[in-house]
Amino acid sequence: KVFWENILQSRIAEHVFSGNIATAENELSLELQKTDDSTNDQGEVYLVGGGPGDPDLLTFRALRLMQQADIVLYDRLVSEKVLELVRRDAEMIYVGKQRDHHALRQEEINQKLVDLAKQGKRVLRLKGGDPFIFGRGGEEIDTLAENGVAFQVVPGITAASGCSSYAGIPLTHRDYAQSCTFVTGHLRDGTTNLNWKMLTHPNQTIVFYMGLVSLPNICQQLIEHGMPSSMPAAIVQQGTTEYQRVFTGTLETLPSIVETEKPKPPTLIIVGKVVELQSKLAWFNPSS
Amino acid sequence: KVFWENILQSRIAEHVFSGNIATAENELSLELQKTDDSTNDQGEVYLVGGGPGDPDLLTFRALRLMQQADIVLYDRLVSEKVLELVRRDAEMIYVGKQRDHHALRQEEINQKLVDLAKQGKRVLRLKGGDPFIFGRGGEEIDTLAENGVAFQVVPGITAASGCSSYAGIPLTHRDYAQSCTFVTGHLRDGTTNLNWKMLTHPNQTIVFYMGLVSLPNICQQLIEHGMPSSMPAAIVQQGTTEYQRVFTGTLETLPSIVETEKPKPPTLIIVGKVVELQSKLAWFNPSS
Repeated sequence: KVFWENILQSRIAEHVFSGNIATAENELSLELQKTDDSTNDQGEVYLVGGGPGDPDLLTFRALRLMQQADIVLYDRLVSEKVLELVRRDAEMIYVGKQRDHHALRQEEINQKLVDLAKQGKRVLRLKGGDPFIFGRGGEEIDTLAENGVAFQVVPGITAASGCSSYAGIPLTHRDYAQSCTFVTGHLRDGTTNLNWKMLTHPNQTIVFYMGLVSLPNICQQLIEHGMPSSMPAAIVQQGTTEYQRVFTGTLETLPSIVETEKPKPPTLIIVGKVVELQSKLAWFNPSS
Repeated sequence: KVFWENILQSRIAEHVFSGNIATAENELSLELQKTDDSTNDQGEVYLVGGGPGDPDLLTFRALRLMQQADIVLYDRLVSEKVLELVRRDAEMIYVGKQRDHHALRQEEINQKLVDLAKQGKRVLRLKGGDPFIFGRGGEEIDTLAENGVAFQVVPGITAASGCSSYAGIPLTHRDYAQSCTFVTGHLRDGTTNLNWKMLTHPNQTIVFYMGLVSLPNICQQLIEHGMPSSMPAAIVQQGTTEYQRVFTGTLETLPSIVETEKPKPPTLIIVGKVVELQSKLAWFNPSS
């Protein structure tokens, strides 16, 4: 029985899923050969991106692993509707990651993942967005690798992708932006000590993750480092969800708009000429 | 019957799917009220990101729209296994997008989308990766908006996300990269006339889309603009698929590695210190 459980939850099942029957049969016969000396009590960690909020933007791979997990460690940024899709009888552990207020410190999270996997558990490490874009996922699997724990990484729709699509703001555009840069508005040392010179180069789109608190500072610094104060800028509240709201303005006006409108986190800031397109390209109106 | 078809394929079905029954019931009753004067012959365009290659990385929303489409316009960068998941009886139109060799010019694609939607068709515009990151999706829906055609945009896992997860190269990392920048190695004018000064700032990860042909030039320019020639760099072939191969080296060595190994497109280039982590964090070995 354990053998079939392993098979069903393995890459073989994934090959079948993706219609790759020949590969699945090959791997199944390999698995049959090696089953005698395999250790079935080895745990594994699934580092999974839960996407920007809309559960409809989960990948098939993410949902399948969410359905297989024995235990789930999740962040504040994972939306509630995504959490509802985790296997009902999985144990849920909230590990925080609120600004300056973690329920568990990063090192403790890293170690907990190792310990649980070594107990033979299938551990789901569920993150908002993508685990390799400001998710500190790299640090977590680094500890796993050092401790010989098996893991896999499942990319998720990162907030920049989700919010731009649902807000109607293309991140790149032939006429306006030939590159896009993702930065975090919340740095390790608590400051917003970013490389402003780099960020003020023309013809790019800048996306700030976790920048709500620093927004006035971000706009001021960009202007001081040479970006026109009339540069379009947007803040997207709870993008891709039914609570999505999009506020657009310029580097000059956005801070006061935010002061008045008080957007709720999670928010994402987009700076660049592409923001001008929003009034024309917006299509998702959850409150209408 | 048409009424129920509309309902089943509408936002209402999506609310049910996402467990939001109350909202679905509300919207259903609204829909019942307005059904008499609704026009059922209005087409719509779904601009959908097909992700990096592995069909398991499609979102639920993407697959559902792929199953609803009457007609599909797809690019070269959409993987075959993803194409296989389109509704069997949908009409398929290949519109190219190979370097300098489009089956249809961009303006023709834009116009075709308008024409088909105006004929009342549900038109799937299927792109590799994410439609708003080097997909020229913004231009396509711009024409739709100007012509009053309804559309929606579904983000996809962009190649940078997919390749980094499956290659074991975090795009950001507390110790190595506080930002990541996506650029295209293939510019409008056929050159690789990028903003090298911006790209050579330290503590970031640079991802080049479509850079295989320009790789020697890219590495040379980065070095000439001050990046150490020992900077780690990787090229990922057909990331997330069974044909994935990852080649790592430095700005100095990568061009000759590529000359020897001849990676097959689509490829993605990742430059930055995070590439060092790959030897430790690689977990996906499709050929093993």
